[in-house]
Amino acid sequence: MEPAEPLSAMFQTTFSIHTRERCTVDITERVAAAVRDSGVARGLAHVFLQHTSASLMLCENADADVRRDLEAFFQRLVPDGDDLFVHRAEGADDMSAHVRSVVTHNDLTIPVRDGRLALGTWQGIYLWEHRYRGRERSLVVTVHD
Amino acid sequence: MEPAEPLSAMFQTTFSIHTRERCTVDITERVAAAVRDSGVARGLAHVFLQHTSASLMLCENADADVRRDLEAFFQRLVPDGDDLFVHRAEGADDMSAHVRSVVTHNDLTIPVRDGRLALGTWQGIYLWEHRYRGRERSLVVTVHD
Amino acid sequence: MEPAEPLSAMFQTTFSIHTRERCTVDITERVAAAVRDSGVARGLAHVFLQHTSASLMLCENADADVRRDLEAFFQRLVPDGDDLFVHRAEGADDMSAHVRSVVTHNDLTIPVRDGRLALGTWQGIYLWEHRYRGRERSLVVTVHD
Repeated sequence: MEPAEPLSAMFQTTFSIHTRERCTVDITERVAAAVRDSGVARGLAHVFLQHTSASLMLCENADADVRRDLEAFFQRLVPDGDDLFVHRAEGADDMSAHVRSVVTHNDLTIPVRDGRLALGTWQGIYLWEHRYRGRERSLVVTVHD
Repeated sequence: MEPAEPLSAMFQTTFSIHTRERCTVDITERVAAAVRDSGVARGLAHVFLQHTSASLMLCENADADVRRDLEAFFQRLVPDGDDLFVHRAEGADDMSAHVRSVVTHNDLTIPVRDGRLALGTWQGIYLWEHRYRGRERSLVVTVHD
Repeated sequence: MEPAEPLSAMFQTTFSIHTRERCTVDITERVAAAVRDSGVARGLAHVFLQHTSASLMLCENADADVRRDLEAFFQRLVPDGDDLFVHRAEGADDMSAHVRSVVTHNDLTIPVRDGRLALGTWQGIYLWEHRYRGRERSLVVTVHD
């Protein structure tokens, strides 16, 4: 009897990042490690952020000025403490953080090829903290073939 | 002979929401019901909106002012009837609705863990209607392990 | 003995588009062809762009003015050569392209139903080039059941 082909894999793991201020954190290696742990050769990796005042993004990974400029752009686009906002229970960065989250991303899906994330040369995966003081941020990574 | 392990599940269902005006509608329970119906214990749930003048978003679910402020922010960001727009066959909310759709989301993927959506405490799934008079809005939910 | 049900499929293919200028390119048929090649009847199709200065979007597919208006809107929202930007090594369209990419999408997931993309009537899949001179743009399409 032939050995059965392996059934499809569905690997899921969680991790958290403690941000200490408004900032971006490169989480590419954390996601890549989950892909390695999954044993998946060809499939998809999904990254999910369980919060509405921080974001995920794929961003240029070579020049830190790109993230600096993104932060500057978003501070102008979504002014902290804007008079337009009614929801301000937690301060000037409360509602602006929610808007930034909706305009960017809370989940990303990246192809897995040859057992690795099939990112472009200049793509990194970043957590973007929008609150001034940071938080404990929980992520769920799911990798499947 | 050993009983075979279950094959992977791919569950797909559709539903529609009739919006009557520009508004947000909490569809979290509709998606959660699809997850329950799927029987998937660990996997992913994908929500897809078959329209380009409405959006999906993950949003803070405790204070309705957050959605009110998002609406106010987007009305300022993408003015209805903006002189910039050529495409205005269906009125002042026509092109602004398309822009809002591109700046936000038409599809979301959420992890499933222990048979439930692995949302954060404050995350809800919302349909965001951008047209003044609303529409019949069709969604496809796919849940798989 | 009953014939075994087929194991789940994970189909992956890559293609590239050579853009020659800032523009939008309808790639719906390219993704639809991948779905046909996959043989998947019910599942999901994932499209991934391996770049941070171009985007993917689901957009109205009937009136080209919609894409013209989106381009006009984004030129006003994210001015090329904005004094705010430090990262300008490659010219006025360098940082603005990165911002456009983060505000829109680099990956899209679309349901597959009855062997076809379950897009709405007016939805098309577009590659949006943000650089003035265009580039060779690589995409990875993954289709699975």
